[in-house]
Amino acid sequence: MRNSWVASRKGKTNVSQMHFARKGEITEEMRYVAKRENLPESLVMEEVARGRMIIPANINHINLEPMAIGIASTCKVNANIGASPNASDISEELKKLDLAVKYGADTLMDLSTGGVNLDEVRTEIINASPIPIGTVPVYQALESVHGSISRLNEDDFLHIIEKHCQQGVDYQTIHAGLLIEHLPKVKGRITGIVSRGGGILAQWMLYHYKQNPLFTRFDDICEIFKRYDCTFSLGDSLRPGCLHDASDEAQLAELKTLGELTRRAWKHDVQVMVEGPGHVPMDQIEFNVRKQMEECSEAPFYVLGPLVTDISPGYDHISSAIGAAMAGWYGTAMLCYVTPKEHLGLPNPEDVREGLIAYKIAAHAADVARHRSGARDRDDELSKARKEFDWNKQFELSLDPEKAKQYHDETLPEEIFKKAEFCSMCGPNHCPMNTKITDEDLDQLNDQIQSKGAAELTPVKLNKEN
Amino acid sequence: MRNSWVASRKGKTNVSQMHFARKGEITEEMRYVAKRENLPESLVMEEVARGRMIIPANINHINLEPMAIGIASTCKVNANIGASPNASDISEELKKLDLAVKYGADTLMDLSTGGVNLDEVRTEIINASPIPIGTVPVYQALESVHGSISRLNEDDFLHIIEKHCQQGVDYQTIHAGLLIEHLPKVKGRITGIVSRGGGILAQWMLYHYKQNPLFTRFDDICEIFKRYDCTFSLGDSLRPGCLHDASDEAQLAELKTLGELTRRAWKHDVQVMVEGPGHVPMDQIEFNVRKQMEECSEAPFYVLGPLVTDISPGYDHISSAIGAAMAGWYGTAMLCYVTPKEHLGLPNPEDVREGLIAYKIAAHAADVARHRSGARDRDDELSKARKEFDWNKQFELSLDPEKAKQYHDETLPEEIFKKAEFCSMCGPNHCPMNTKITDEDLDQLNDQIQSKGAAELTPVKLNKEN
Repeated sequence: MRNSWVASRKGKTNVSQMHFARKGEITEEMRYVAKRENLPESLVMEEVARGRMIIPANINHINLEPMAIGIASTCKVNANIGASPNASDISEELKKLDLAVKYGADTLMDLSTGGVNLDEVRTEIINASPIPIGTVPVYQALESVHGSISRLNEDDFLHIIEKHCQQGVDYQTIHAGLLIEHLPKVKGRITGIVSRGGGILAQWMLYHYKQNPLFTRFDDICEIFKRYDCTFSLGDSLRPGCLHDASDEAQLAELKTLGELTRRAWKHDVQVMVEGPGHVPMDQIEFNVRKQMEECSEAPFYVLGPLVTDISPGYDHISSAIGAAMAGWYGTAMLCYVTPKEHLGLPNPEDVREGLIAYKIAAHAADVARHRSGARDRDDELSKARKEFDWNKQFELSLDPEKAKQYHDETLPEEIFKKAEFCSMCGPNHCPMNTKITDEDLDQLNDQIQSKGAAELTPVKLNKEN
Repeated sequence: MRNSWVASRKGKTNVSQMHFARKGEITEEMRYVAKRENLPESLVMEEVARGRMIIPANINHINLEPMAIGIASTCKVNANIGASPNASDISEELKKLDLAVKYGADTLMDLSTGGVNLDEVRTEIINASPIPIGTVPVYQALESVHGSISRLNEDDFLHIIEKHCQQGVDYQTIHAGLLIEHLPKVKGRITGIVSRGGGILAQWMLYHYKQNPLFTRFDDICEIFKRYDCTFSLGDSLRPGCLHDASDEAQLAELKTLGELTRRAWKHDVQVMVEGPGHVPMDQIEFNVRKQMEECSEAPFYVLGPLVTDISPGYDHISSAIGAAMAGWYGTAMLCYVTPKEHLGLPNPEDVREGLIAYKIAAHAADVARHRSGARDRDDELSKARKEFDWNKQFELSLDPEKAKQYHDETLPEEIFKKAEFCSMCGPNHCPMNTKITDEDLDQLNDQIQSKGAAELTPVKLNKEN
């Protein structure tokens, strides 16, 4: 689809959606997104120009079906996959991609750190993916010098960043906001730095006693990004890794720098979103969202959870879906899922499914709570099917139809029960939605109440004995 | 334990905790609760006297370990179990009770509607349970007349209510707030009435064209309750069954009556909590909690979820845990769990576990967000263990240690990995918590930054090459 769209753009110095939007051009990608989001094309263009909406769409990711991230569009969900030296391989990762797309991931990050050829797995994922792909180039930068912080130099970072752009990566996490002067503020934290990329940069700065190369070379990175329309996902290296560390001085100092970098990227007409926490108690979530909007001039916010408690290993998809739903309600543009394996091991395909559904719930609940036009339609349709005991339609309208059907069929598998006016929860005689009370019954009752008052009623022959 | 406590109370006309509290007596139950909650005994007494805290403790539930529900104490979680005509039996229900207690349920409701002898399963559950047991007597009232609404009379309700009291039930859902004049307001809803007890009473009122017997005989029920110290859980028959129906006129009309009944029960010195929704979009949850406090003079609120979307069958424990956590944060005293089987079938023991952990997360997150004293201690301990790579301690401090260990061991089962400074998520070289950055490193850096500024640093020999 995009072959013809991008053909004329190749070789230009700036092919970013923001660049076109600021020139008043509505691209095919904007048109596509406007249709998907049911928004006016002009609004999409204006939001992209303003930096409040991004369309991550590398010109080399040809089979991409463009989508938008921003407060004017629906709340999005990202799924992280990737092999580690201890688990998985390319075919397993491609399986995770398929599952992620099937269960409604809006974007996907390949966070492979080893155990596979990093270029190979990334290229295969991009080629197979209709949704935007994000990466964290720092991992491969370190791998390219065999893990040696001392040998890793500024150009290594830029070399890998450009390689990812060439391969068609739609957005890259760039940990440019972590300054060397922020590091002392980490003291006193319980869990210190919990961002993988951030940890590598902190080690680099502490070894070389030099400023963060992603910060000092930020304009060079912008120059690369604009040629491919790769979008910044400004990494929050100092995101809190536990409730204790949430909203602390270290986190907020970095956020301020992320805001400055946002505006610097915008000067290049390069698209930006900003990453956020992490682990945050419920009462601090609204503050975190508002603060990001304020510091980062409303660039789309992209949070990881946040988890609202630290005591839920094995169920962190749930504790983080709570925080994510609230963050989405307060205006966060994209929620990065957390799987049940978080903090315990590498997620497998089933974990991807569990994590994604939890986050589809969070994002959808946020859209409903923000009163987005039409957001509740599917809820209402499912509720009507529920009232009508149309079980197959209920399954069909569910976020995970197979799981819904499987759970229903666990106790009542026979086909006849797909039209039964009950399930095994209450059995045939106790389902409250099967009282057979009709609007007519209620009207008759109401007429008497209106004319005689509730104390003086005369029974109507209802023939409703059960 | 309670044998000696209650011995002197038997035969008295009012043995409720509220009655004693209002006389200025601190009972053994209050003392026990004060210790559990780390609250002054006098505060517990005052809160119980005020009606803002309840201690559901039927004098016939001898092996009960008393607990408190109210805004001054930690947020509680209730687990619903019970057989239905289509599934389960007594031994399965006792297994669910054991699991519920194991995973931290604070109270438990036996909602059996059939398939078992209702008295037998209830008695066995009470005898085996250290936590308060709640019931919904309407189910058995209907069963006692073989399901015939026409034959069901006012005394049948009271007869069953007293029987449950005699058996040691600590609290009963009494659907007294549903008035006949509320019924016409149900028109226009998508899912109508979704409370099982409420549905039965609506049918009864529409058949007999008479006011709700639980309302007209409310003072008689108070007289029964005070002799056993059974607590009211005032049922919300008109709780919304879908987002569309949330916070509507029907729901709020009943809530007003629930407030009046709360104060009527308090005149008898009978303890009360009030049940709430259900299905509520996130942006209406705070309103619902505040409205209940206002209408019901701050009697403890006990909500079922609420689910924040209707499209999550199979995952309703997650969509409802989001609403529950928020409700708890806003001041709800107890959260009734929802299992993954909600709307699909009767939960089995594994569903009980999944539902409970989701709700333990919600209640705990609420306690943290409300800044309850010491609420975050366990989070901090677990986070420290995480930073120290003490895997066994992490498991131990988790809400579900077995699940946490199982997930970790899925990829790294060998005992040696219980002290490894990584897990399979990032592998041995990429764990951000293993950067070996010390406080000393940060102090050295800070000294230079303070004296020379961040731009003019001289590398310190760190010997930290990796």
